[in-house]
Amino acid sequence: MSRRRVLGTLGAAGAGGLVVGAVSGAGIASAVSEGSAAGAPALTTVGSTEVMFHGKHQAGISTPLQSRGHLVAFDLVPGAGRKEAAALLRRWSATARTLMAGGTPGTDTGVSLDAGPSSLTLTFGFGRTFFDRTGLTAHRPSQLDPLPAFSSDVLDPKQSEGDLWVQIGANDALVAFHALRAVQKDAAGAARVRWQMNGFNRSAGATAQPMTARNLMGQVDGTNNPVPAQASFDQQIYVPDTASGAQAWMAGGSYAVVRRIRMLLDDWEGLSREKQEQVIGRRKSDGAPLSGGSETTPLDLNKLGADGKTVIPNNAHSRISAPAQNGGASMLRRPFSYHDGIAADGTPDAGLLFIAWQADPLRGFVPVQRKLDRGDALSTFIRHEASGLFAVPGGPATGEYVGQRLLEA
Amino acid sequence: MSRRRVLGTLGAAGAGGLVVGAVSGAGIASAVSEGSAAGAPALTTVGSTEVMFHGKHQAGISTPLQSRGHLVAFDLVPGAGRKEAAALLRRWSATARTLMAGGTPGTDTGVSLDAGPSSLTLTFGFGRTFFDRTGLTAHRPSQLDPLPAFSSDVLDPKQSEGDLWVQIGANDALVAFHALRAVQKDAAGAARVRWQMNGFNRSAGATAQPMTARNLMGQVDGTNNPVPAQASFDQQIYVPDTASGAQAWMAGGSYAVVRRIRMLLDDWEGLSREKQEQVIGRRKSDGAPLSGGSETTPLDLNKLGADGKTVIPNNAHSRISAPAQNGGASMLRRPFSYHDGIAADGTPDAGLLFIAWQADPLRGFVPVQRKLDRGDALSTFIRHEASGLFAVPGGPATGEYVGQRLLEA
Repeated sequence: MSRRRVLGTLGAAGAGGLVVGAVSGAGIASAVSEGSAAGAPALTTVGSTEVMFHGKHQAGISTPLQSRGHLVAFDLVPGAGRKEAAALLRRWSATARTLMAGGTPGTDTGVSLDAGPSSLTLTFGFGRTFFDRTGLTAHRPSQLDPLPAFSSDVLDPKQSEGDLWVQIGANDALVAFHALRAVQKDAAGAARVRWQMNGFNRSAGATAQPMTARNLMGQVDGTNNPVPAQASFDQQIYVPDTASGAQAWMAGGSYAVVRRIRMLLDDWEGLSREKQEQVIGRRKSDGAPLSGGSETTPLDLNKLGADGKTVIPNNAHSRISAPAQNGGASMLRRPFSYHDGIAADGTPDAGLLFIAWQADPLRGFVPVQRKLDRGDALSTFIRHEASGLFAVPGGPATGEYVGQRLLEA
Repeated sequence: MSRRRVLGTLGAAGAGGLVVGAVSGAGIASAVSEGSAAGAPALTTVGSTEVMFHGKHQAGISTPLQSRGHLVAFDLVPGAGRKEAAALLRRWSATARTLMAGGTPGTDTGVSLDAGPSSLTLTFGFGRTFFDRTGLTAHRPSQLDPLPAFSSDVLDPKQSEGDLWVQIGANDALVAFHALRAVQKDAAGAARVRWQMNGFNRSAGATAQPMTARNLMGQVDGTNNPVPAQASFDQQIYVPDTASGAQAWMAGGSYAVVRRIRMLLDDWEGLSREKQEQVIGRRKSDGAPLSGGSETTPLDLNKLGADGKTVIPNNAHSRISAPAQNGGASMLRRPFSYHDGIAADGTPDAGLLFIAWQADPLRGFVPVQRKLDRGDALSTFIRHEASGLFAVPGGPATGEYVGQRLLEA
């Protein structure tokens, strides 16, 4: 069981202004928001919810999906090495700790004044290229070996990979933007932006309980995600405490596979709802398998219809990606949708910022994607346009900065 | 007093699921959301709030700011004229009526299932070029004459103007995106997208009362906006019922000036907070004038400081744009922020989708912008990159479609 688990019930619209931000193994840590300016309207829990910066795992992995997200990758500038990278991670950690608590850095733009922490999380990771540039090659885990090529890849290298990666999420667009600017400002002189993407999910606080996540194809997404309450969660998602060798510094960490997946919405929306449901293998209305039940009912992969064919088609996305079809391979998908307007060809430049978390990509994303690559009915309607793989270290203990165990190894 | 006024208190996070969407002169019209799928979590007012489609004025003008917005301009395709335009407005009106009530069109993608109306509004306007193309030149109001050129303009014609304009706003990103796709689908064969922009504001429901709007410079925005409760509101914002001649069809309508205003954030954020406050003439923390008081205190333009200079500098943005300095010229600013990532020059491609509403641009936007053009301290930090001017007709009566009084004139 993870030492720290963000409450799944946070983000609901309720009465109180005070918020329990996290539960630690040692007891309940409560945090009162200080983010509201004098005279400003009282915050609801959407604004006042705080996620803890310190802990065994970084925030932004098992944290409930936020309504706004920014992904940004940096490359170290020429001449910057291990020392400059360590100083940058120290600055980023100080910024993250302050902003996630609803505070403001010394020289602040005021963009997020009055807004409260709004469940802000900042999550930091290292790409494969980081290690040679900082003389840390001996500490590069084999889990960062390049992902295999897939047939649906049309990857833009300029929008892919990077030395450093930051995931920002918040339930207020201005809070997320403010954090992005702060992270960019901290990087000055040490690293420059390689790529940056904006994403969103359904609004927090629009329902009394956590919401069904839908993507821009209208599909319920994330149904089969492992949940922290399951005994196997930590083992599937986090690098174990017993990690050694090149991975020793990754104890409590996780590997993030990031894919910008363009949805060919004009084609998709041309299908009837029945056809769309055959492609996915689930009902559109509530995400229930075509074999029956509700969203959380397991797929009955053998159930036959009146026509003698399997009710969930053999090339249905949900069948092919089911853990039972992949030797139990599992990952935590925690995506944002993206929409960057109209592409040069006149079609919508929109889709999914797919982010998958796992203890080892070779037991998570890779086997599932290999399987999908060989016959997923959905592949006609999507295109992988960018890719990144990042080692996201464990959360910092009090007084530590993120990545300290690597940079001071 | 306007016949229909959307309640300013909606959008607050509360307990109930039922919502009064609008108050009409004839009594209170209550509307119960039907947008939630069976078994889905109960909606809060963020999700269940419905804005009325029918009324004297179109929705999306005096409606409280929503957290997500899309602006999209269309040009009629070659060969399409008045008949095709009328059919398109009929389709768009049917779609707007259905979606704003939380319903789903016949062939629906399901993207906004479970989300409720989420204060969705769709607002439709006509650009100057529409009238010649549809043989309606005699009905083109002089208010649509081209705006004068301003020295801070660096306008991209491809991102400016257009035959038709649609503003979409909602408190849920998926609801807004869903409406955008529906509007695009309706246009097929009659009009093609000319430009499209995405915007956002602070999250609805993050505070118990309506929130202070901040822009990406961190400034409180919209303080001096006219409010519907003021006797002069209708006169300033809406075309009067007595309108005649080329403007007769615009009774109850309004003119929208749309400007994509890029903020040079790297430069702005390099200023100290004190310098920023001198540029604006207001305190950053709460928007109060530098001459004292709170956000809503009138500017004391003559107050002198210890140095013998006016406390609100002579080139301060708030001084120059004050109605008292512009013969009472007034407009309703109802913007969205935008952030499209990193521009080609490495700076943030972010700023304000400025949308100003007025009964006549020559008594609203034009005189104020002329004055700002001659010495606004803020002009160093912004760049107008796109511009549009649209005639937005009055709201449709029951059984009418938007623009019917023009298209069937």
